[in-house]
Amino acid sequence: MLKGNAIIAQSGGPTAVINNSVCGVVERWLSVDAPGKIYAGLHGIKGILDENIIDMSKQDKAIIHGLRYTPGAGIFSCRYKVTDSDQEKLVEICKKYDIRYFFYNGGNDSMDTAHKMMLAAEAAGYEMYVIGVPKTVDNDLPFTDHCPGFGSAAKYLAATVMETGIDLQSVSTKNKVTILEAMGRNAGWLTAAGALAKRRPEDAPHLVYLPEVPFYIDKFLADVEKLYNELGYAYVVASEGIVDDKGNYIAAGGTIDAFGHAQLSGAGEALKNIVEHELGIKARCNTLGTAQRSAMHFASLTDVNEAYMSGAKAVDLALAGVSGVMVSLECKREPEYVCRTGTVPLGKVANIEKKVPLDWIVKEGNNVTKDFIKYARPLIMGEVNLPIKDGLPDYVHIDPKIGKIK
Amino acid sequence: MLKGNAIIAQSGGPTAVINNSVCGVVERWLSVDAPGKIYAGLHGIKGILDENIIDMSKQDKAIIHGLRYTPGAGIFSCRYKVTDSDQEKLVEICKKYDIRYFFYNGGNDSMDTAHKMMLAAEAAGYEMYVIGVPKTVDNDLPFTDHCPGFGSAAKYLAATVMETGIDLQSVSTKNKVTILEAMGRNAGWLTAAGALAKRRPEDAPHLVYLPEVPFYIDKFLADVEKLYNELGYAYVVASEGIVDDKGNYIAAGGTIDAFGHAQLSGAGEALKNIVEHELGIKARCNTLGTAQRSAMHFASLTDVNEAYMSGAKAVDLALAGVSGVMVSLECKREPEYVCRTGTVPLGKVANIEKKVPLDWIVKEGNNVTKDFIKYARPLIMGEVNLPIKDGLPDYVHIDPKIGKIK
Repeated sequence: MLKGNAIIAQSGGPTAVINNSVCGVVERWLSVDAPGKIYAGLHGIKGILDENIIDMSKQDKAIIHGLRYTPGAGIFSCRYKVTDSDQEKLVEICKKYDIRYFFYNGGNDSMDTAHKMMLAAEAAGYEMYVIGVPKTVDNDLPFTDHCPGFGSAAKYLAATVMETGIDLQSVSTKNKVTILEAMGRNAGWLTAAGALAKRRPEDAPHLVYLPEVPFYIDKFLADVEKLYNELGYAYVVASEGIVDDKGNYIAAGGTIDAFGHAQLSGAGEALKNIVEHELGIKARCNTLGTAQRSAMHFASLTDVNEAYMSGAKAVDLALAGVSGVMVSLECKREPEYVCRTGTVPLGKVANIEKKVPLDWIVKEGNNVTKDFIKYARPLIMGEVNLPIKDGLPDYVHIDPKIGKIK
Repeated sequence: MLKGNAIIAQSGGPTAVINNSVCGVVERWLSVDAPGKIYAGLHGIKGILDENIIDMSKQDKAIIHGLRYTPGAGIFSCRYKVTDSDQEKLVEICKKYDIRYFFYNGGNDSMDTAHKMMLAAEAAGYEMYVIGVPKTVDNDLPFTDHCPGFGSAAKYLAATVMETGIDLQSVSTKNKVTILEAMGRNAGWLTAAGALAKRRPEDAPHLVYLPEVPFYIDKFLADVEKLYNELGYAYVVASEGIVDDKGNYIAAGGTIDAFGHAQLSGAGEALKNIVEHELGIKARCNTLGTAQRSAMHFASLTDVNEAYMSGAKAVDLALAGVSGVMVSLECKREPEYVCRTGTVPLGKVANIEKKVPLDWIVKEGNNVTKDFIKYARPLIMGEVNLPIKDGLPDYVHIDPKIGKIK
């Protein structure tokens, strides 16, 4: 085993359970006969570039363990696209701090960053083991059954659809159409999770619109009107990224993020306005926003444990001499759900978005099939026994001033 | 004790715990030597007018008890303003079904309806005991320490502020201002509850805007910019009903509900746009909408128990010959929180909105004081051990076809 230190950093939008992966990396590293220290790069690759690095062994162990119950990016995240010169500089920084094990916790763009780090180290002839640890509420990483972070977001979203659906059913007001806008720019996984809420035919959601298939306003209005006439109400879950048959967003934002993605907002509000103006039915739009990716208060225990397992496995792999892979999840659902880790080359994962299979979307394009439900149900199972203080979750904070190495 | 039947109905927007009050009424009625049957008017006073009434004793007792863990209006709600001729008709219906005990579960408008029922019965010389059972997430009923429903909404909202606040703090993106729009048309209680989330000076929320004091856009922008420069981010909780110094809504809706209230939407979105355009800082708006009033998955156990207690007490009062009152909550907070029921005449409560005291709002108008925190903290204490099925809450449904009396 190569002597040297390890570093872990987080990138992209947080999830409720992303810190479980960091905790898994750090606790596993500290529990084995590891060949060096375990550092954290604060604010992802940007923090490492800035040498904003702390020695995690200096943090209180109870705080580190508290990351298992804390949403957000515990060691801070970034959205930053590394340049060629950045890559050279990063290798120099790794050399400077004798970093031989590099763990990067994120989604598609982050796996691309990890892959580039691996290539840059190779090009410089610097021996370093690079492992990607997946996270994303979007569930759009390829070559893995699912992504840590998705199950918890799905559970919270589905519970909210169930609760606001019951609210809708139980009130005679003119707010008779409820729209819930779900996160997921190009992949409809989290939107589809809304369908987990339905138990009886009349229950919410009634219509589910994913970005994978075109959205037709006239068909949408006809569907809403039919439901309204039959039930007296309609509940719609729509992705923030729904597009018409020409690929235009139903509600476009206009700004572009660091990776060239369009920043969207307002698909739900757009549908609300369309229903009100075209059908004359009062509608309401709930936009949960970042609550979807941070609601640890109703996280999936399955997800929590898999996120932790992914982090711990990354350490095992690196110390066994594996490099250039992302930890993946390999699952079977019959006769019962079993999930174990696998690996997939970073170069295969980077920048590919896995979308909801088209045969899991009904041909009318307004809902998902039972195959999706079978896929997603096991991922939302189990509840977390959250520490509570003064009536609210007792979340922890890593102190960025403790253990600074520069 | 007067021989005769009882009826319970729900009105207005539901809360997470409103069904606890119905369950309290029904279970108490069925557990004592009551002088008749216990009916439910489905869809509130409108349902009673339509003789849409069921005998609750015909429902499965486990379903009735399941109302303790089910959000929404379990026996369905309405928003309907009774006319003079309605009142006469309602008394005739009560006579027809020998209804001598009338329980009405709702907010300000509902207490007005209950009061009118009492007066109409008196005018007709019909002996009937009328008791109001309070509910509202808005917490705006007068002559009661607080309202059942508020504690749970406050707990869920504060947890969401905490979680999305951690999300904001932990990410380096251009979404550096988060706005959370809170329910509460004229009273800022639920908005103020966001302040319960703050533990450290840098924690969310940083700015809290209630409808009780004027909102000045220039002061708001200066506050956001100052925070952004000091911390790198700012978290704002704003009421849906914030108004400028001329009383104009910062974002007005335009339509009017059955009681003449303006239907609002978009205050949060308006603030997001103002921040982006005037300061050039990217902002994000989370609009939880009806999730605030239905999130039983993170309800306050204190609230759950007080809602149940209010319903049970209504039965005790009516059977003891009391009429024309709303059950109120009388609390002391030192040396420890104790809550017991009291009563207040319906005529005093009807149509009065209790607002947040001005001396609980800081003089800058952008936050609440510690007095509010002391007031609200006990109301969010305790968690509910929710029955779970397939990874989601196992909510119950009263079957409106079971026990129909007409």
